Parts: sequence; structure tokens; C-alpha cells
Amino acid sequence: FDIAPEFGALLVFIEHRFYGESKPFGNDSYKSADTLGYLTSTQALADFAVLITSLKQNLSAVDAPVVVFGGSYGGMLASWFRLKYPHVAMGALASSAPILQFDDITPWSSFYDAVSQDFKSESLNCFSVIKAVWDVLDYRGSNDSGLLELSKTFRACKTVRFPSSLSNWLWTAFTYTAMVDYPTPANFMMNLPAYPVKEMCKIIDSFPVGADVVEKAFTAASLYYNYTGDQKCFEMEGGDDPHGLSGWGWQACTEMVMPMTVSNESMFPPSGFSYEEKSEGCFASYEVRPRMNWITTEYGGHKIDKVLKRFGSNIIFSNGMRDPWSRGGVLKNISSSIIALVTEKGKHEVAENMQGPKYSELTNA
Amino acid sequence: FDIAPEFGALLVFIEHRFYGESKPFGNDSYKSADTLGYLTSTQALADFAVLITSLKQNLSAVDAPVVVFGGSYGGMLASWFRLKYPHVAMGALASSAPILQFDDITPWSSFYDAVSQDFKSESLNCFSVIKAVWDVLDYRGSNDSGLLELSKTFRACKTVRFPSSLSNWLWTAFTYTAMVDYPTPANFMMNLPAYPVKEMCKIIDSFPVGADVVEKAFTAASLYYNYTGDQKCFEMEGGDDPHGLSGWGWQACTEMVMPMTVSNESMFPPSGFSYEEKSEGCFASYEVRPRMNWITTEYGGHKIDKVLKRFGSNIIFSNGMRDPWSRGGVLKNISSSIIALVTEKGKHEVAENMQGPKYSELTNA
Repeated sequence: FDIAPEFGALLVFIEHRFYGESKPFGNDSYKSADTLGYLTSTQALADFAVLITSLKQNLSAVDAPVVVFGGSYGGMLASWFRLKYPHVAMGALASSAPILQFDDITPWSSFYDAVSQDFKSESLNCFSVIKAVWDVLDYRGSNDSGLLELSKTFRACKTVRFPSSLSNWLWTAFTYTAMVDYPTPANFMMNLPAYPVKEMCKIIDSFPVGADVVEKAFTAASLYYNYTGDQKCFEMEGGDDPHGLSGWGWQACTEMVMPMTVSNESMFPPSGFSYEEKSEGCFASYEVRPRMNWITTEYGGHKIDKVLKRFGSNIIFSNGMRDPWSRGGVLKNISSSIIALVTEKGKHEVAENMQGPKYSELTNA
Repeated sequence: FDIAPEFGALLVFIEHRFYGESKPFGNDSYKSADTLGYLTSTQALADFAVLITSLKQNLSAVDAPVVVFGGSYGGMLASWFRLKYPHVAMGALASSAPILQFDDITPWSSFYDAVSQDFKSESLNCFSVIKAVWDVLDYRGSNDSGLLELSKTFRACKTVRFPSSLSNWLWTAFTYTAMVDYPTPANFMMNLPAYPVKEMCKIIDSFPVGADVVEKAFTAASLYYNYTGDQKCFEMEGGDDPHGLSGWGWQACTEMVMPMTVSNESMFPPSGFSYEEKSEGCFASYEVRPRMNWITTEYGGHKIDKVLKRFGSNIIFSNGMRDPWSRGGVLKNISSSIIALVTEKGKHEVAENMQGPKYSELTNA
């Protein structure tokens, strides 16, 4: 929006098939593997190529250069598009694009280590309170009276049935807040103050030392869910089924396999990653099994600095280091025209175009 | 075979799906669009990527560099593979790869103009005799007694039913001989002497001026079909049905659309190219219609020098200028590492690996 007028440029927002209104089989699009099979990143890239080429012909602007922009998954697509379709796009700006979050290129624990680091860097007490809350939740939620009590503390609209619902609720708040930790207030898709991680930690640190850790964690997380203060109660269970047949869930179960673990050093309960479990889960949901190494086979990633040092050009990878996804991004210049822009205090940037899945879908991946 | 020992290299011949023994649906593979739909160049490239990546893992040679080689269609695949999978192949030798024979990048008449030029450069009389034969064939073949007479002249095993069968027979001989016009005898897939075009023209020129042009053309063409002299008669009709469901026919009816015309200046009967006719023919054979601009959308081609000047590296395009396909090849250096090797007297080079369709299929394209 800023520089298009300067270049006399046309801004085009291309919707990714299966997201938004681009449903190739109408409301049946997400029904099964037969229809979801047409939802892949390679198909999306080919769609972009066909659309851009055809649009330029229709506009009698065949010679007009094209630059693609995207953030998050859309950032991956932008960089891959420049690499696969250099004849269609002369350059790409790939913001917050974790194209190295596949296979074993980036350590699997780096994402949640980075989230934890965001909180630890604000306040060690804040970090410790969050680290402590999970066991307490599990313990208190192990019986019905405990769950009833917790439901009141969390202002749940309905009494929750599983303590894991509360953990997930907190987990989402802390993780997403880290992704949007930014010096200016957020008002796109969610409302948050400037420096929301700092604000959350301020809330936690303002409690007396002996106060209940659950109360502290809940109040901090409310900042994420209820910054505007207009929500009287929270839906903790039900609503959108995160395990339903969603577009991003399909992609994560076929090609976009980003293994993640939680290390002992993080503020979340430690957990591992098992290809077998992932595969079983995907088979249960979609009757397909993921191709674990497909993304690196199709798009590369291993030794990206060597591979692209003398191949390709005109890609900017931008990352904010406060964004946990930055750990899987390209953080160093590869050549004179494949460069990395790193902002130490930057967050996860999502360009609206080529974005693809909704925020909420991306979490469930 | 020559340089592999020098590099301590492993030679791997990867068969293209649907050609040779790689039939994904056994003998049903060519039955209909449902099965043939899996026969595309992009699928073949992805197969190569998966096979090479997996092979290197199995051989504990993940870091071994890979260079791909191919000729003709296989040459196109080699260059496209380097462009699309730089992380899998560090370089490509693309010989006789007419990657610019699509859309309107190369003049549609250039192929048959080049064939004609090969003959004209040997002998103007030779060129004129061949140019004259088509009308004579049509005229004499317009009734049964004429066809019977012609069948004898052509030593047909069975009396031919259509004069076009004889024209096609000659056409194939002249076109293919131009493709393999080379200073050394051919003994791969066909037997021919060194400089076969020169030899054909010698045959034509050795007849007395007043001799029958049909006799001249037939005797010259026999060099192509019967250099060893062991064929007593020729199958002019039937046998392999060129309009049957073949792999290359499918590719030519879906993605590999190379428009060709015959100009008035050529030695063949002039003809045009109609997208509509092509589309109707494809629909009749396969119940699909070709995507006329797909190859340039997927792989580029337009303004290739500009697009690849600062993008990509390590591709050699080699072409022999006696090969009519060379007109659709990359004949000039694009950058310091995307280079063109042109041999003025070279022919159509077909590396055995990645070759794909048989010679005979390629003609029917």
C-alpha cells in the first residue's frame, strides 16, 4: 500500500485454493482425501503462476515485472514461488517464513525455547510462574470438584471437562502473544497492547509472591483473550473443533510436517515428537499419512546457503527475532541478492496476501 | 561413461514414468485419462527428485553432488530439473533440448525450414526433387490403379490404401535423417551411414535428370529404412498405430504442445497449425484438450536470456545446428554458468538416460 503508487504498481491479492472462498468442490471441499488431495503448496504455486500470467495478458501488461509478497506460510510460498517461477516473479519478499522448520534443519525445540526466552527476558519470575502452572493445573483438575473450582477461576462459560482444555487455553495465549510481541498495539485479527509479553509479565509480577500461580497465569492470559474487556466468560471447550478436517490440518498431515518438541528448559511441559504418532493421528483424521521429507525434497532447505549461493536471486527474508518462528527462518545473507533482514525486536509478520490459513489453523498444525 | 571413472561417480539411469517398464497401472496405464493423468513432466521431475534424494540417503552419500544429463525431451527435463531442483542437482547438461519450441517463442516454421535447409545445403537438385514429389504422389495415388502402381514402386508389403501413407513414409525418412545427420555412422536405434543427408542427396543426384521423381525419392528414403539392405518389403500402413493411446501422444495432447507449420519455402507440402484442430484431435483420442501455454507457464521460455541472466546457474545447452530441433534450443550463452555449446555440423543428440519417449513416439507429437 505504501510503495505501489510510487511504482505505478497494481496490487493483487491472490487467494490460496481451499482457504477463504476458493473452494474447488464447494462445501464438499474438506470432506475427504479425494477432494483435499488438490490442496497442496505446489498446486497453490501453480495457481499463482497461471493467474499472474493470465492477468498480465488480459491487462496487456505482459512485460510488467511482478514481485510477490507474503508472510508466515505465505512467506514460504513467496520465496518458493520466486525459486520455482523466476519467469513469473522477478523477486520476492518473504516475511516470517520458516522455510527451515522442516526435517532436522532447525532444532525441534527451538520454537518453544524461543517463546520461553521471550518471557524469560522480560522477567525471570514471570517465566517461573508459567513454568510452574502446568503441574498445578493437572493436579487440581484431576477430580470433579477441582475442575469446578478451576472453571470458576478461569471464568469458563461452561464447566470444563478436561484439565487439558485449560492448559491449551493458556498455551495458546502465551505462544501467540510471543508471535505478536511488538512495540505497537495490535489490532489485526486480535487486539493487544504494545509489548504484550512485557504487559503479561507485569500482570504476573504485580501479584504478591504467595498468590496462586493459577490465578496469576489466568489473569496474564486474559490479556490475550480479553484485552478490550468485553468478554464476560470464555469458551474453553467445543466451538471450533481443532481436530476437524481443516485445510491447514490437511497440509500439516501431508506435506507441511514441522516437527516440534518442548525442552526441559522451556516454560511449557516437556514433550517429544514422534513421526509414528503424527502419522497415526493423521491417518485417524484424514486417512492419509504424512510425507515427512517432502518439503525439503520439493523445495530444498538443507544447506540452503550453499545451494542458493550461486543459484537464484532477488529474495528478501525478513524476520523479527521476538517471533519464535524466526528460528526456522533464513537469518543470514546467502548472496548479494538473497538477503536476510533481521529485526531484533520484531514479531511474526503476516502480509495479508498469500497468507493462506488463518492464525487459528496455524496453531493446530 | 567417459568421465564418471575420473570423478569416481556413480551413473544412474532413471526411467521416466510410463515409458519402458515404469507403468504405474500395469497394462492399464495407457487406457484412459484417469491413468494417463499421472503422466506429466512435472511428476517425472518430482520422481527424479525423490529417487535421487532417497538413493543418496541409502548409499550414505547425502553430500555427493549430482549432475543430470539428458537429450531431446530428456534434455528439456535435465535443464528444467536444475532450474526446479537446484538443491538436488548442482548442474545439468541438456543436449538437443528444444525448450523454446513452445508458444510463439520460436517461429513455427523453423523446424521444417531447418530440415529443408539441411537438404538444400547438400544439393539444390535434391531439394527440388523432394519438393516436387508430394504433388506427384497425390495425383498418381488418386485412383486405385495409380495406388497399385505406386505400391510396387515403394515395394509395399501390402497394396496401400491412401497416398498419404506414402507421403508420411517419405516425410519420416527425410525428417529423421536430418535429425541424425552426423559425420559418423549411426548404429543406435537405427543404422545409417556417415553424413546421411549427403548420401540421400547423392542417390537423388545420381539419377538421370528426366527420371521419375517418385523413384528418386523412394530410393533416397530407402537409405533410412533399409541401409543394411535386409528388408524385402516395407510396411506402409498399419503396424504401430500412430494415433493410438501412446505416452508421448498423451503428453503432446496435454502439456507438450509444440506448434509446427510448413512454409512455402520448405521442401514439404505447406501446412498450417490450428489450436482448434489440435484440440479436437486430442479430444477424439484422449478426451482431453491441451493446455496450450502450460509449458511456458510452468518452466518459462519467454525472454529466457533476461529471466535467467541473474537467476540459476550450471546448465549447458548443447545443440547441433544440422538438427532441426536446434532451432528451438538455447543457442547463446545466458550467463557465465548457463552456457550454449553449438556445433555447426552436429545432429540431434539423445542421451540414453532421461530420454523418455521412443524416437518413433516423438515424431507423432
